Amino acid sequence: MRAITVKPGVAGSARLATVDDPRPAAGQALLATIEVGICGTDHEILAGGHGEAPRGSPWLIPGHECLARVLEAPEGCGLRPGQLVAPTVRRPCGQPRCYPCAHDHPDMCISLQYTERGIQGAHGYQCERFAEWPRYLVPLPDGFADFGVLMEPTSVVTKAIEEAARVQRARLAWEPQRALVTGAGPVGLLAAMLLRLRHLDVTVYDRDAADHPRAQAVRALGAAYVCSADAELAQVAGADGVDWIVECTGARALVFGALQALAPAGVLCLLGVSGAGVSLEVPADAINLGLVLRNGLVFGSVNASREAFAQAGQSLAVAEANWPGWLAGLVSVRVPPADVASAIGGGPERIKTAVRWAG
Amino acid sequence: MRAITVKPGVAGSARLATVDDPRPAAGQALLATIEVGICGTDHEILAGGHGEAPRGSPWLIPGHECLARVLEAPEGCGLRPGQLVAPTVRRPCGQPRCYPCAHDHPDMCISLQYTERGIQGAHGYQCERFAEWPRYLVPLPDGFADFGVLMEPTSVVTKAIEEAARVQRARLAWEPQRALVTGAGPVGLLAAMLLRLRHLDVTVYDRDAADHPRAQAVRALGAAYVCSADAELAQVAGADGVDWIVECTGARALVFGALQALAPAGVLCLLGVSGAGVSLEVPADAINLGLVLRNGLVFGSVNASREAFAQAGQSLAVAEANWPGWLAGLVSVRVPPADVASAIGGGPERIKTAVRWAG
Repeated sequence: MRAITVKPGVAGSARLATVDDPRPAAGQALLATIEVGICGTDHEILAGGHGEAPRGSPWLIPGHECLARVLEAPEGCGLRPGQLVAPTVRRPCGQPRCYPCAHDHPDMCISLQYTERGIQGAHGYQCERFAEWPRYLVPLPDGFADFGVLMEPTSVVTKAIEEAARVQRARLAWEPQRALVTGAGPVGLLAAMLLRLRHLDVTVYDRDAADHPRAQAVRALGAAYVCSADAELAQVAGADGVDWIVECTGARALVFGALQALAPAGVLCLLGVSGAGVSLEVPADAINLGLVLRNGLVFGSVNASREAFAQAGQSLAVAEANWPGWLAGLVSVRVPPADVASAIGGGPERIKTAVRWAG
Repeated sequence: MRAITVKPGVAGSARLATVDDPRPAAGQALLATIEVGICGTDHEILAGGHGEAPRGSPWLIPGHECLARVLEAPEGCGLRPGQLVAPTVRRPCGQPRCYPCAHDHPDMCISLQYTERGIQGAHGYQCERFAEWPRYLVPLPDGFADFGVLMEPTSVVTKAIEEAARVQRARLAWEPQRALVTGAGPVGLLAAMLLRLRHLDVTVYDRDAADHPRAQAVRALGAAYVCSADAELAQVAGADGVDWIVECTGARALVFGALQALAPAGVLCLLGVSGAGVSLEVPADAINLGLVLRNGLVFGSVNASREAFAQAGQSLAVAEANWPGWLAGLVSVRVPPADVASAIGGGPERIKTAVRWAG
């Protein structure tokens, strides 16, 4: 079958290759890939900065944002041929001490010995077909054909949003009103969507001009968009601060700016992954004092459990009912597998690019 | 009656003065102060750096760590004359938007318009007698006479510890093993005590030499003490990191060091208040990346609800049963009210100083 392969650590090594067909083990399902989204992690892998091939393989099949269709499924597993599914990404580490992995939460793995399909130690989904255990496949309604590829990024954001709500409810009678999302990429837009589904007053802050398709997508949700050229983050937050901030850029100035933009008893979720290991002069005492005297809370979040995938599916269904066509509009560019170079290129008008494997 | 008074903002203005006796309103109780502990906030107030007098008063009676005895109590309020009590400190703001204050959690006040007895806008307890509403008085057993003055700092630590446990349980099946406390002052020692009551493997890290009374107090709990002259924080944390860190110094290098000492899915409670507004060069990208990719969580905590006071009372009772005399040993110096200067001075062998008002 056809697959994209990369040599981890080697920039520009991505190829459309012919590889062996998958051979499902007893109990596994066989899936046909429909399309696979490309995110910042993929860009890093394709640039040679991240990724790890499975043991014994010189190359890695990348791709972890996948919409697929069941070709064959074991009897009694609840999946039927033809059904749409989204596969999860991270697999449990199996280490005896790792209670999160033992509790179906490899997203919270404490040994860091997990594998991730398409990223770390396991092949991903940028290929025509793959085999998987049914427990790692989340069934989707047929209506998800046009936007089901957003399941994985939505699951990551859902995990963070649900975690923030649970954590805040665990420490106070929380009634948030104002939310701020830094970054208007796919993760920021999906965060804004989930926060709007919670009826919050949402502002998205990024560098794009106000007429950029991403800014338009923000406004289509009934959220506000502020371009960083027009206002400092502190001005957007105002004197009262913001109850709920989701940081989706990893830009160090925004991360530490967001810390200071929090309202008393507010929560800041960090979803953005920082790049180069650069230091920054920060108002260390003011940050500490603000967090302590105002009961601030900050947490980082990565990956998603199967539970978060299931919740993401529910949220996508509600979002599609509220804003028909909005989700499909996020997948702004679709390319054939042969067009790997343009798929990793990106362009100013793009929101999410996906590689299309089957109709 | 006699009271210590200070002029907020004026260093060295503390006096032992004669002031009007308290006049309880209908429904209030009248209390006789037994003793009042002195903490870092008091030092700041006495140094003119903090504190706010009640409206219409040129001076403030400081003191918020109080053990008192009921002199008179309204019928049916559950308090009897002679009973030991600890009064809480913060009073609700009464602002319509502030749901935490409306839910008996002024410790989480979001308007920041609260008052605090002895600190901000209300007289404290460094005086012979005071009036208070029964709902702000936490009854204590007679056995608390020797260490009940520790109720307030214990309540502050209890709030943070309980909040950390609730927050962590809200986001994962948490089974912490290793805990680290930075700072061996009274707050750090009480944090170590509460973590030992949870059967954790606890290390306390501070500047004092290993034979200092504070280091001895740490070891008496079955915890380890490490002097910062002997090891870096990163060495103490080790490669695996620490599940649960309680930062009690506010020292900027320790705050940001602790962030990097967290184990995956770990929690860092910030309890230490930073001083001067100094900036620090921090590895911003590494901190963000660590929090995101390892699901780290950090929160600041201040003050305590009545509920936390009640829990603190239970913990003190269990601690006294486990380590008899340990708590009383923390109140290492007691001074008469006339001796304000020495009470705020401190000395190398001191752990907690209290002003003694009545036998």
